Amino acid sequence: MAASAVSSLTFFSLLIIFSSTLTMAADPDILTDFIVPPNATMGVDGSFFTFTGLRSLPGQAPPTTFTVTKVSLKEFPALDGQSVSYAVLQYPSGTTNPPHTHPRSAELLFLIDGALEVGFVDTTNKLYTQSLQTGDVFVFPKGLVHYQFNADAQNPALAISAFGSASAGTVSLPSTLFVSNIDDNVLAISFKTDVATIQKLKAGLAPKA
Amino acid sequence: MAASAVSSLTFFSLLIIFSSTLTMAADPDILTDFIVPPNATMGVDGSFFTFTGLRSLPGQAPPTTFTVTKVSLKEFPALDGQSVSYAVLQYPSGTTNPPHTHPRSAELLFLIDGALEVGFVDTTNKLYTQSLQTGDVFVFPKGLVHYQFNADAQNPALAISAFGSASAGTVSLPSTLFVSNIDDNVLAISFKTDVATIQKLKAGLAPKA
Amino acid sequence: MAASAVSSLTFFSLLIIFSSTLTMAADPDILTDFIVPPNATMGVDGSFFTFTGLRSLPGQAPPTTFTVTKVSLKEFPALDGQSVSYAVLQYPSGTTNPPHTHPRSAELLFLIDGALEVGFVDTTNKLYTQSLQTGDVFVFPKGLVHYQFNADAQNPALAISAFGSASAGTVSLPSTLFVSNIDDNVLAISFKTDVATIQKLKAGLAPKA
Amino acid sequence: MAASAVSSLTFFSLLIIFSSTLTMAADPDILTDFIVPPNATMGVDGSFFTFTGLRSLPGQAPPTTFTVTKVSLKEFPALDGQSVSYAVLQYPSGTTNPPHTHPRSAELLFLIDGALEVGFVDTTNKLYTQSLQTGDVFVFPKGLVHYQFNADAQNPALAISAFGSASAGTVSLPSTLFVSNIDDNVLAISFKTDVATIQKLKAGLAPKA
Amino acid sequence: MAASAVSSLTFFSLLIIFSSTLTMAADPDILTDFIVPPNATMGVDGSFFTFTGLRSLPGQAPPTTFTVTKVSLKEFPALDGQSVSYAVLQYPSGTTNPPHTHPRSAELLFLIDGALEVGFVDTTNKLYTQSLQTGDVFVFPKGLVHYQFNADAQNPALAISAFGSASAGTVSLPSTLFVSNIDDNVLAISFKTDVATIQKLKAGLAPKA
Amino acid sequence: MAASAVSSLTFFSLLIIFSSTLTMAADPDILTDFIVPPNATMGVDGSFFTFTGLRSLPGQAPPTTFTVTKVSLKEFPALDGQSVSYAVLQYPSGTTNPPHTHPRSAELLFLIDGALEVGFVDTTNKLYTQSLQTGDVFVFPKGLVHYQFNADAQNPALAISAFGSASAGTVSLPSTLFVSNIDDNVLAISFKTDVATIQKLKAGLAPKA
Repeated sequence: MAASAVSSLTFFSLLIIFSSTLTMAADPDILTDFIVPPNATMGVDGSFFTFTGLRSLPGQAPPTTFTVTKVSLKEFPALDGQSVSYAVLQYPSGTTNPPHTHPRSAELLFLIDGALEVGFVDTTNKLYTQSLQTGDVFVFPKGLVHYQFNADAQNPALAISAFGSASAGTVSLPSTLFVSNIDDNVLAISFKTDVATIQKLKAGLAPKA
Repeated sequence: MAASAVSSLTFFSLLIIFSSTLTMAADPDILTDFIVPPNATMGVDGSFFTFTGLRSLPGQAPPTTFTVTKVSLKEFPALDGQSVSYAVLQYPSGTTNPPHTHPRSAELLFLIDGALEVGFVDTTNKLYTQSLQTGDVFVFPKGLVHYQFNADAQNPALAISAFGSASAGTVSLPSTLFVSNIDDNVLAISFKTDVATIQKLKAGLAPKA
Repeated sequence: MAASAVSSLTFFSLLIIFSSTLTMAADPDILTDFIVPPNATMGVDGSFFTFTGLRSLPGQAPPTTFTVTKVSLKEFPALDGQSVSYAVLQYPSGTTNPPHTHPRSAELLFLIDGALEVGFVDTTNKLYTQSLQTGDVFVFPKGLVHYQFNADAQNPALAISAFGSASAGTVSLPSTLFVSNIDDNVLAISFKTDVATIQKLKAGLAPKA
Repeated sequence: MAASAVSSLTFFSLLIIFSSTLTMAADPDILTDFIVPPNATMGVDGSFFTFTGLRSLPGQAPPTTFTVTKVSLKEFPALDGQSVSYAVLQYPSGTTNPPHTHPRSAELLFLIDGALEVGFVDTTNKLYTQSLQTGDVFVFPKGLVHYQFNADAQNPALAISAFGSASAGTVSLPSTLFVSNIDDNVLAISFKTDVATIQKLKAGLAPKA
Repeated sequence: MAASAVSSLTFFSLLIIFSSTLTMAADPDILTDFIVPPNATMGVDGSFFTFTGLRSLPGQAPPTTFTVTKVSLKEFPALDGQSVSYAVLQYPSGTTNPPHTHPRSAELLFLIDGALEVGFVDTTNKLYTQSLQTGDVFVFPKGLVHYQFNADAQNPALAISAFGSASAGTVSLPSTLFVSNIDDNVLAISFKTDVATIQKLKAGLAPKA
Repeated sequence: MAASAVSSLTFFSLLIIFSSTLTMAADPDILTDFIVPPNATMGVDGSFFTFTGLRSLPGQAPPTTFTVTKVSLKEFPALDGQSVSYAVLQYPSGTTNPPHTHPRSAELLFLIDGALEVGFVDTTNKLYTQSLQTGDVFVFPKGLVHYQFNADAQNPALAISAFGSASAGTVSLPSTLFVSNIDDNVLAISFKTDVATIQKLKAGLAPKA
């Protein structure tokens, strides 16, 4: 695999540039073939059902941080009512997709290139982990906390994830917990630590000025 | 890959368990009036639809830590297919129900006694907070991270929460993140901190021997 | 209520007192974290997710008739898409919550104070009854006819009910059958009685001028 | 229509004989094309998807009481997971299908022969009525109390009803309220009448020995 | 059955005139009793819930081609949110309802008059067929290709079909494949035939000028 | 794109070998984190959530016919209840994925390599087509007939498709219509052609002995 991974790198490291995690779930059924937004200015044709936003990735420089590119309801209105969406995930060496959940879907990750350490924790607090090889598919069950880590010191990893909702949403736990401005005291009590540790975590995660 | 698999093995070693909040969501519809477990040994009567596990609470000493008592599918089999359940929440002074999510339902909290500081964070990372008085009802939307805090130095608080699923599940974030044995390095990178800080958090949250 | 409030005070403290009908079911899933009504005049904050309409109940005189206070989509718009709602039920001595159904949900009743005789009838016409004590929880399955009765000659009863829909609706059978103006003859044939009996029932249930 | 109604009578008064009310709703989706019962003894062919129980109706004598013949999950196992079912309804002159609800579906009635007075009551207690002619279709919304009455002194009526569930269930209100053995006192209080009136109603509706 | 079939013919061949195929599925649940279109100009009464478009059929001449008359959301707005609809199907001797699917529902066919050869093909490509007699009910499972054929050289057939959606939609395969203007070459490769055969099929199915 | 497409070819033509069509839809919600098959012989760990069946593709020779490799409930039991699945599609030059439908889901195709002509037909018989470039994403709405065609005389194409069901099913129209043994006469009437043309189509599509 090593050789082919390298050659695919040529393509997929071109393929790249994005920004966080994402997902979805069981959307309501619809009573029409598809849904056209009310502000659509004219007749719908095949281009309405086409998303071209990933075409530009191959020519771009590879990202230096973990990057997610979503193809969900927000970016692609034709997905409304169709209960499916995508995300493209790019992991430079040594980066993580930090622990997160998707409120509205399971996630089905297909590892296109590289290797990944993945894991999720169920509601009994049991951790499930796996070392994925290129070509492996892994399912993160609905609503559970999960993460991915590219432990390879040399090679980036590239994955695509599918979701059973057009708009699964993502709850990224580091920023939800330590960037959203939850009270220091509440966090210190919750995490059984001191306020200073909470403040240190907040400082580390705060957006750079 | 072999080498990294080995190293990841090393990483995932500790294990502990905790549990506490609870919840639920939109269950599948059923084709019968109700569902009787296959192991029900005899005819069903009114007692099958009755849960008596909370009768004993009034006579008991108040808890000294935050305490949740669930009335969900596991404790009350008659809820199967009925898409609803309860939790009773008791907050001694100064305690929190730490940040958590429910994979399968929104939560509708009714504050029966005392006062609570509550909050949740949406998928755009915006925090919503409220100071609740006795009698207030607060809705935590489906799948979002939320918490409650009894800031009153003198008085306990008591709440009941309803869920739109018989089995919403709870993902308690402190224990999911720092007690389930996720690799220190993955957490340090994810939370943009050092391994020592992660280990300190893990130590603080570890169950006492 | 004063006397019984004191006794329940020990456990459920200042809990107390509330008014009208109630219900629930499996609402459609949503594609957003929550739904803000189109007529919301400005930014949404924590108060949007808070219902304060029950705060005033404790200070009010206890009702003299069976009284329901709903916390559903109509009273609390933030419930839209969240598939859960509440009702508070107050039963003076000797009163009933007459036979009724909820078109869109099961009901999960939690008896906060007092005692209740409850029952429901399944679609094979079998009656299930139970004598509830304070602290008991009883589930009325989806769509079935049910009632509650406070048989205690001295003490009121207080319950809260949860529903797995934001808007379950209530079909109260005495008024649906005998106040909505269904033809006397249809009712007499349906109930295998004479028109005079139907008219007597209608007169008894008619709203007072 | 009079002439054709008479000629169709020839066919459909032959068409007859049945037994109560019925209905259905939104069943859970399935993950297979269809569901074969576990006890099916051998291979499934076209006959599994065919219900022949109505073939014998034409040759039978017309019923003398209101009669329903269901084609639902119980009678026709191939409907499992298909979210649809039927009932055939026969109304001799002057008979009613008494007020009832279907817990799990709306009802779409197609009047094949004769005339019917129909009505339903919504959850605000408003009555909607209509005089149906042969060929009319009427929808009784999900979960609401409804009835039909053949007011024609000479001619029977025949209808077919469709439901959006394989197993909607029926709650017939006269028998649910007055034959299922609900306590006389509860009913008297609920219907704001005396116990004697309740007992008279119960006696009239009681099954004949 | 022959005699009664003939007499019913008198009625139902009057009953007739329609126009294509149709169907439906599991619609989203609603939070109200029913849905009134925004353009409804005034108060809703019983007539809103009544569809009278089939009253005129009995007086019309029987169709000379296979004809479908739908009673779905489009024709009958009160069906919105009620998850059920109808179609009336008229088959002159020797005509077919060509192979088709319904994207949003199973179909439950009730053969009112005449005889029909019916069939469907499952996703393993297995064909199920049945010869239906008057009075038979046949279920075509959700989403599968099916057809009906009136093989009787003398007598028409009449059926009614119910669907578990207000708007199932119909995909008629001859016109979808050979009238919608799919590229000849794509069709020739797909059907493993030559372009001339595809063009011949298209010519035969093309609407007459 | 030409250069990178060529280099990715190196990877993905290694990546390959598969076998037919596939799809999915809105599965029923579950009441647990995930579902373990009853025949699972021992404890579940991370490998249960991993599908490795695509690892072997890169080393295999590219297919000479259109080939689909499914990753659905059948191949990957952990998908049960998770409402999502995949298919990998390989198109040698000049091949089609023939017109087909998925009974239980929309399809979201991501074109990984090469170019494709795609199209679908809605229930009003309108055709929507698009010429896809590498990197494009196209949504085929739920239940509609669609196809893909690799018109490039030189280069293969490779796509991955996601579905919002663990088991969408596929109805391939050439084989459903002309290989499943539907009666020649029914097909000739349905397609407005002669029996000879039907028999020619059947012969062309028949599996080779």
